[in-house]
Amino acid sequence: MIVMAAGATPAQVQEVVRRAQQLGLTPEVSHGRERTVVGLVGHETEPDLEKLSTLEGVERVVRVLHDHPLVSREFHPDDRVIRFGPGLELGGPSVLLMAGPCAVEGRGQLEAAAGAISELGVRVLRGGAFKPRTSPYSFQGLGEPGLLLLREVADRFHMAVITEVLAPEDVPLVAEHADILQIGARNMQNYRLLQACGEVDRPILLKRGLAATVDELLQAAEYVLAGGNQRVALCERGLRGFEPSVRFSLDITSIPVLKRLTSLPVVVDPSHAAGRAQYVPAIGLAAVAAGADGLLVEVHPDPSSALSDGAQSLDPTAFAAMVAQVVKVAAAVGRVAA
Amino acid sequence: MIVMAAGATPAQVQEVVRRAQQLGLTPEVSHGRERTVVGLVGHETEPDLEKLSTLEGVERVVRVLHDHPLVSREFHPDDRVIRFGPGLELGGPSVLLMAGPCAVEGRGQLEAAAGAISELGVRVLRGGAFKPRTSPYSFQGLGEPGLLLLREVADRFHMAVITEVLAPEDVPLVAEHADILQIGARNMQNYRLLQACGEVDRPILLKRGLAATVDELLQAAEYVLAGGNQRVALCERGLRGFEPSVRFSLDITSIPVLKRLTSLPVVVDPSHAAGRAQYVPAIGLAAVAAGADGLLVEVHPDPSSALSDGAQSLDPTAFAAMVAQVVKVAAAVGRVAA
Amino acid sequence: MIVMAAGATPAQVQEVVRRAQQLGLTPEVSHGRERTVVGLVGHETEPDLEKLSTLEGVERVVRVLHDHPLVSREFHPDDRVIRFGPGLELGGPSVLLMAGPCAVEGRGQLEAAAGAISELGVRVLRGGAFKPRTSPYSFQGLGEPGLLLLREVADRFHMAVITEVLAPEDVPLVAEHADILQIGARNMQNYRLLQACGEVDRPILLKRGLAATVDELLQAAEYVLAGGNQRVALCERGLRGFEPSVRFSLDITSIPVLKRLTSLPVVVDPSHAAGRAQYVPAIGLAAVAAGADGLLVEVHPDPSSALSDGAQSLDPTAFAAMVAQVVKVAAAVGRVAA
Amino acid sequence: MIVMAAGATPAQVQEVVRRAQQLGLTPEVSHGRERTVVGLVGHETEPDLEKLSTLEGVERVVRVLHDHPLVSREFHPDDRVIRFGPGLELGGPSVLLMAGPCAVEGRGQLEAAAGAISELGVRVLRGGAFKPRTSPYSFQGLGEPGLLLLREVADRFHMAVITEVLAPEDVPLVAEHADILQIGARNMQNYRLLQACGEVDRPILLKRGLAATVDELLQAAEYVLAGGNQRVALCERGLRGFEPSVRFSLDITSIPVLKRLTSLPVVVDPSHAAGRAQYVPAIGLAAVAAGADGLLVEVHPDPSSALSDGAQSLDPTAFAAMVAQVVKVAAAVGRVAA
Repeated sequence: MIVMAAGATPAQVQEVVRRAQQLGLTPEVSHGRERTVVGLVGHETEPDLEKLSTLEGVERVVRVLHDHPLVSREFHPDDRVIRFGPGLELGGPSVLLMAGPCAVEGRGQLEAAAGAISELGVRVLRGGAFKPRTSPYSFQGLGEPGLLLLREVADRFHMAVITEVLAPEDVPLVAEHADILQIGARNMQNYRLLQACGEVDRPILLKRGLAATVDELLQAAEYVLAGGNQRVALCERGLRGFEPSVRFSLDITSIPVLKRLTSLPVVVDPSHAAGRAQYVPAIGLAAVAAGADGLLVEVHPDPSSALSDGAQSLDPTAFAAMVAQVVKVAAAVGRVAA
Repeated sequence: MIVMAAGATPAQVQEVVRRAQQLGLTPEVSHGRERTVVGLVGHETEPDLEKLSTLEGVERVVRVLHDHPLVSREFHPDDRVIRFGPGLELGGPSVLLMAGPCAVEGRGQLEAAAGAISELGVRVLRGGAFKPRTSPYSFQGLGEPGLLLLREVADRFHMAVITEVLAPEDVPLVAEHADILQIGARNMQNYRLLQACGEVDRPILLKRGLAATVDELLQAAEYVLAGGNQRVALCERGLRGFEPSVRFSLDITSIPVLKRLTSLPVVVDPSHAAGRAQYVPAIGLAAVAAGADGLLVEVHPDPSSALSDGAQSLDPTAFAAMVAQVVKVAAAVGRVAA
Repeated sequence: MIVMAAGATPAQVQEVVRRAQQLGLTPEVSHGRERTVVGLVGHETEPDLEKLSTLEGVERVVRVLHDHPLVSREFHPDDRVIRFGPGLELGGPSVLLMAGPCAVEGRGQLEAAAGAISELGVRVLRGGAFKPRTSPYSFQGLGEPGLLLLREVADRFHMAVITEVLAPEDVPLVAEHADILQIGARNMQNYRLLQACGEVDRPILLKRGLAATVDELLQAAEYVLAGGNQRVALCERGLRGFEPSVRFSLDITSIPVLKRLTSLPVVVDPSHAAGRAQYVPAIGLAAVAAGADGLLVEVHPDPSSALSDGAQSLDPTAFAAMVAQVVKVAAAVGRVAA
Repeated sequence: MIVMAAGATPAQVQEVVRRAQQLGLTPEVSHGRERTVVGLVGHETEPDLEKLSTLEGVERVVRVLHDHPLVSREFHPDDRVIRFGPGLELGGPSVLLMAGPCAVEGRGQLEAAAGAISELGVRVLRGGAFKPRTSPYSFQGLGEPGLLLLREVADRFHMAVITEVLAPEDVPLVAEHADILQIGARNMQNYRLLQACGEVDRPILLKRGLAATVDELLQAAEYVLAGGNQRVALCERGLRGFEPSVRFSLDITSIPVLKRLTSLPVVVDPSHAAGRAQYVPAIGLAAVAAGADGLLVEVHPDPSSALSDGAQSLDPTAFAAMVAQVVKVAAAVGRVAA
């Protein structure tokens, strides 16, 4: 990792990049508020980096020992802002709300959900077309038709689309129709999928595995960044625990921990953690208070009829009440919920 | 459990109590906003309760099957408010702040802490005189002299005292000098201690064991209530988890879960969960946003010199910043932090 | 699930199968020692099965409510025996030993390992050609050349090959060169991979995810069986826990639990659980005593130079000592280790 | 820790002890097969130990940094053998079997259990007189009469008694009537109880807390040894986990881990871990194969009528079958079960 001096010129940075490439390294340039850092990822070899420290404009060369140099805050000190869709941002001053049904079930369901959600000012529609299911006999999602429907309905309501991608071979299709690609908790360490997401020009929302440490999550994100895609957000959605009254145990502390270690945006999914709609608002408010950059909430026009995860889905009325509270808590911590 | 009719008279309630006593039961009367409930705790025997349903003013007799009838919200639907010390409340509309050093180390340390904390409007001073320590060779607290010092310093700053009690034989002494007795996580299932706390006229703060389910916490609280002490608050302080970056994993969802199941106040200790001062404010704000009735925070005038838990203690400056934020988040959820 | 009467003829079974197919169901016939069972997997629909009960030779129709009918012991009461390679068996009276290096690193390493292992009578060689690695910068395996080398060396020593397959697109290649395909813990819920393994004519060793319940493991196996591949063995390799002295916490009780719920063979991998070679023999012996049908052990000719998982690999001398003990414990529980 | 030279005389050891006492330290002498070690426990102070190295017969002075010097294998390299009752041993070449009902319920139940158990050659009778119960409304044990009954019945069958002690004030009474005092998992960090057990002349069986690390267990044992009682055995009885099919998750790996770190005997309680009688034999066999020095098994003459823990109790027939298998597995690992 090459830290450039405070007033280093673009030409000096370019020279560092060129020399690094000559050494067989892949340089990634990161422009911070105060200074520029050039990350050099080397594969287990230790070339003679020290000579680079003699170039003009270089302040110092730092060897980063941990296994996720690109995602680390040392490398990219300023919070990363992911820009996507029609002028939307994740990781900036706003708290981004994303909502919708767990699974795309049909036009009526999706239109009802999108209508209710967009009326509250929410600009990102979630919905699963490809569903990973524990049982082979559960509803597996509508697949491509579901994806097309999701796009069509989102467009009608001027919303962006976030949806899960299950396998590397589906990445191009999903990337064509969605604004953000979501990697589910069960796929956090599906390395082929991470690599495929590294090559696509779409933001990735990477969910933490249900028994993954923060360090493993960061290393999984590193696969995507190392593949060339810098627009990655991390999502806490609850860990496997022993408490029977909840489905997963949301690790609220992971928010400040992640904020310290990485500059990638941090999103929280309170619905999967709670497993019960009644607990979703409290967890969502807690996440915003703790510094989350976004929330991903399951909203269904009629939770009792949902084909998937009905018990944890809010109905539009409950979601409207939650949004009103989120707006206030976001303001209390100096942010705007949108 | 006898649910009295909406307009039942005190005399009718008294008659139910008298008849229940004749049946060998221990009645506990709970006056709700709308109606009065008489809890009857029977020890594995099933006397002929049905006759009580024929008394005047009785609406119905409900058999409660779970193992914590007295702490349950069915029995006591309204939030319980614990009044203590000089006009203080836990569980009412305010969010109660309690702060101080992990261990009482000496007069200078305690006065510095109490001075800084009370200036911020905090009215409850915490500090350990009897310390449970993992190692027999660690500092075990000052014992009785520490307790007397805590009382003296708190009085000087017009503060109430909360401190841990380790063993049944210490309960009378601690109750004499403290306003709230704290039962630590390691003692959550020390039944003799719970029974001793059931017989004392002081509020009890019962901390959740680090691998206890919510149900086990409620059953532990039931020991205290069954002993006759209704002033019990529950405290979430983090569970044993696998994530190495934190000391314990705070179960934020336990707040709405407990609020659903019981009307006892819920307090959060963000310091023990975090294990690192840097994470304490975010966790504390999250707890208030999720509905906690109080926070218990470790503050030390000079954390680096602390004899116990220095790494997780805030210094007065950091605590002042945290309090300012807590005030805002509390307001956002319709409460006042004090 | 149609349970045939004790003396039902093949023609009667065929008639049940034909009629079930007419109803749009996929029948799977299972011949037990005492009677034949026809499993009928229906996708969330509930056709009129009751008429089948009127067919000749049918004893009764049982509706199985859980989500893994094909793997369940109710459906297939007798232990399933997987036959593979040159006359080898997994799940029969013998305890099958499988050993080799974590990763195929080169010819010398593999030959040294295979030589030492085969001398002890072990007939199955393990070795990773495609390696899932937490960090993108770790050694990812030799890929296809590693696979070919593994086959070649195994053939020289008259051994069968077990190796991991990481992605659906690699299944045909790995199936061509390996005798058993292993699905790693991180891929236990990679449903596309499970489906691909359901279509191949090779036994599958499915490892339990590090936070998967027994029920989720069985449902993952159900994906493979529902795809048409009945030769599936399950592998316990340790769960994520809080104890810092081991890498994963081996769930020894899962062995009798799995034996009760399913008739699929159960294998234990003591190496990944221990994370430290010193603990591997004790865990392996415990697994055999508890009823495991096989062990998968990491053995490296020179653990200190291993590119992957050296700390948990046994050297050939330590492995020889372990095998001698395994033989004795297997005999004590009425089995032969081979 | 003073390591004496190989041929050091008793007088030389005595001189070291005397000088250490002059320095205000508490010396504990440990005679190993090859050499004698004098442990010196100092409370946070660091006196000038170096002068002791100049005494005759002293080989070297070692400062032990971890928090459990007395229990560590460095201090006491040879396995400790606890002798108790009528010529019984725990920690020697035999595997000690201890069995009996969870709770003492009455004379008939206890005699039936003791009769059946002693016939199988088991010499230690377990039974709870003081029971720690999660709910205040569950059967809490018969107390002192139960203890007297346990002693009386054990004497009739020439058995030793192991029973739980719940509180410091009960230690003298229980020590009068029992041969081994058991500290339950919930009391592992009840420091007053540990201290009281440190002062009694009876072996202590210390159970691991359900979320305690191995290190915390060793530090808890250190409290007892530091109090002067060297006869301590450790008991693994399962950890809190997420798997719903078992009550607790037995940590089989803790056996070799403990054997490496300490020379105290290690016992396993398969009954509490399993929570279901069906799984108890497999877990018990696994424990013996992994190196356990003893088993503590719940046996009830009529499990379906038990007042406590019936589901996990073996009936005498099932226990007899288990003992027959334990004898074989013990022999396979070079030990005798008795």
